[in-house]
Amino acid sequence: MTQNIYDDETFFAGYSRLPRSIHGLDGAPEWPVLRGMLPQLAGRKVLDLGCGFGWFCRFAAGEGAASVLGVDVSEKMLERAQRETDDSRVSYERADLERYTPPADAFDLAYSSLAFHYIEDLAGLFGQVHAALKPGGALVCSVEHPIMTAPTRQEWLTDADGRAAWPVNGYLDEGRRVSNWLTEGVVKRHRAVATHLDLLLGAGFRLDRLVEWAPSPEQVTAEPAWTRERERPFFLLIAAARS
Amino acid sequence: MTQNIYDDETFFAGYSRLPRSIHGLDGAPEWPVLRGMLPQLAGRKVLDLGCGFGWFCRFAAGEGAASVLGVDVSEKMLERAQRETDDSRVSYERADLERYTPPADAFDLAYSSLAFHYIEDLAGLFGQVHAALKPGGALVCSVEHPIMTAPTRQEWLTDADGRAAWPVNGYLDEGRRVSNWLTEGVVKRHRAVATHLDLLLGAGFRLDRLVEWAPSPEQVTAEPAWTRERERPFFLLIAAARS
Repeated sequence: MTQNIYDDETFFAGYSRLPRSIHGLDGAPEWPVLRGMLPQLAGRKVLDLGCGFGWFCRFAAGEGAASVLGVDVSEKMLERAQRETDDSRVSYERADLERYTPPADAFDLAYSSLAFHYIEDLAGLFGQVHAALKPGGALVCSVEHPIMTAPTRQEWLTDADGRAAWPVNGYLDEGRRVSNWLTEGVVKRHRAVATHLDLLLGAGFRLDRLVEWAPSPEQVTAEPAWTRERERPFFLLIAAARS
Repeated sequence: MTQNIYDDETFFAGYSRLPRSIHGLDGAPEWPVLRGMLPQLAGRKVLDLGCGFGWFCRFAAGEGAASVLGVDVSEKMLERAQRETDDSRVSYERADLERYTPPADAFDLAYSSLAFHYIEDLAGLFGQVHAALKPGGALVCSVEHPIMTAPTRQEWLTDADGRAAWPVNGYLDEGRRVSNWLTEGVVKRHRAVATHLDLLLGAGFRLDRLVEWAPSPEQVTAEPAWTRERERPFFLLIAAARS
């Protein structure tokens, strides 16, 4: 079973204070790009895997989606999601994505933001998602970029010119990574870019777009503390379709 | 025009001493994986972009290809390729890939080994390759991995645990990189993984497979000096098809 770190008191308190938890999608700097990768939502049936506080579910309903099902393992997150949602087209379900079987041929879009890097059996989940989509249906998702998740010591180094350098090692050694983000002992899964694509193509998806996201030059100008974050990609954004 | 570094005396002398120049494909550690990405060659028409000494051209002919056209900008390399080729199905042509137009709808396979990272207008070349392939034809190619080409100082660092770490920076800043490999001032183009895929999909290709190649554990056992080379991918291998 996937570690349910979001129900850890310390983690949840920290996560709740992040801009993306306070301001929702507009507090997530990658959102404008991820949004641009979405198909039209009006009239569509949407599945959100790892829906958290339900920001995307409410957004999709606001765009006119016919129905939105948000799934998450965290009781605390779903409790708040439910509380903040007043739309009969949106429903929530508590489930561990590691062993979740959504209804088959039911969705036009499967969406997932920063959840898949917690999943151990991603091949299995991609298979479930493929089966849950209608033919031609889309999968749009984000994960931490493998350049971020690879290193055993995720700390900036400095090169001989004095420039910040992100220390990549262990890239080929996929699997468990333990980081101290918001609390100690957060378990994520490191997978190469190629592995994500292999698993998608293997599950029967067609790749439509891949983005290696980092803050844009404009975002760095507005938030100078992010300058270093443009040295390497931060998130991997993927758009694929059931072909 | 692309820098024609292979006709530089010092570079050519150094390149000629590499295992892959002496032993051909079997001297290239990525070859077994790249070979596994090829379609059947018997009876097929093959284009090799950046054919160098013609090793792959002769291999393809040996596998029963109907015809093989090798293209390269280097006079010195083509001179040796010609000299070592005794097969009427193989022909060579000297051209700068930056402005090369192969015949349209003519090939079943376009192959390119470690040449595209010298190309400035890769979108243009992918467009040419797409037009040169018959419908359903394959493109199989390798480039230096963007994790390799990104940093301005391509020198290993050591992390706080004493482990070798490859210094990634400048990943989002695509373009010219000058390295001192075999001689000084070798100009390559850094492009993100996502950019390679964007350009391929934009040219009308379908992605069939992506491999982030590093020496296998077995290769490292046989060649212990390569241990560090498994810390990050070395080459990007791509299989795509004209869809």
